[in-house]
Amino acid sequence: MNFKDYIRDIPDFPKKGVVFKDITPLLEDPKAFRETAAALLAFTDGLKVDKVVGIESRGFFFAPLLADRLGAGFIPARKPGKLPHRIHRKEYDLEYGTDALELHAESISPGDRILVHDDVLATGGTARAICDLVTELGGEVVQCNFLIELSFLKGRTRLDGFPLKSLITY
Amino acid sequence: MNFKDYIRDIPDFPKKGVVFKDITPLLEDPKAFRETAAALLAFTDGLKVDKVVGIESRGFFFAPLLADRLGAGFIPARKPGKLPHRIHRKEYDLEYGTDALELHAESISPGDRILVHDDVLATGGTARAICDLVTELGGEVVQCNFLIELSFLKGRTRLDGFPLKSLITY
Repeated sequence: MNFKDYIRDIPDFPKKGVVFKDITPLLEDPKAFRETAAALLAFTDGLKVDKVVGIESRGFFFAPLLADRLGAGFIPARKPGKLPHRIHRKEYDLEYGTDALELHAESISPGDRILVHDDVLATGGTARAICDLVTELGGEVVQCNFLIELSFLKGRTRLDGFPLKSLITY
Repeated sequence: MNFKDYIRDIPDFPKKGVVFKDITPLLEDPKAFRETAAALLAFTDGLKVDKVVGIESRGFFFAPLLADRLGAGFIPARKPGKLPHRIHRKEYDLEYGTDALELHAESISPGDRILVHDDVLATGGTARAICDLVTELGGEVVQCNFLIELSFLKGRTRLDGFPLKSLITY
């Protein structure tokens, strides 16, 4: 299956000059959706994973599914103010300004083997923040995987040292 | 399994006087997570489902998983400004003011059999807005299912006429 057939380019979204990769056609098509999940799961062949971290919001589309198949727990990495208990936060740089992501501090135990999943690897700032959070909490990032890698943004270099897989590359 | 053992009460979150039901312990525990997914799936026994609509953001934790298991497509119902293509929007009342949810207009075809999923049924305003959107686009809501029903808020009455299932009731 050519997954790119199910990804729609949206020019100037969310802002002028950006071409947004819209994955909703892939999600809506039962066959494309199942094959995508299966392909992401295949990246983890032979890996022992205790918990899967999905990054808000589009990382939530596949991360819980991967957790279920792997017999792992699921941890949502959320934007500030959404998680109600004791949190651990990491700020990261955007093109202009900063943003932040939070995990529940007790969600990761020392030695936990963690799969980090998001829909898109762009500049890598978001994924790097999560990898650092996981590491600070004593977890080991055994893989970061992505549905889409925008290779021209060189996010891979920000994740140097973390095993990385992506399904669809532009 | 007593699912309530994995749900944590957070008093005064997100605001004073509200007791928030934190489902993250249930998500993080592999066994509780799998059994929850299986129990939600069991609600659909005998139902033919073309697409599963999950409501942003916590509805995304289980809706794609249900879609995958049912051989259905997944449709994210999102907050305004997130979906990049031609959208269909519904506003709904909150305690103070209004909010809105959007679907891609082409995501539902006339006659599609739709399962609507969200994490919590509270006053029912959100789920009702989605059921109305689906119906306006020509789809048929064959079931709304929820992880948690806050029965004291009587959301069920707002969804009168739509088949409804919930896993954990308070």
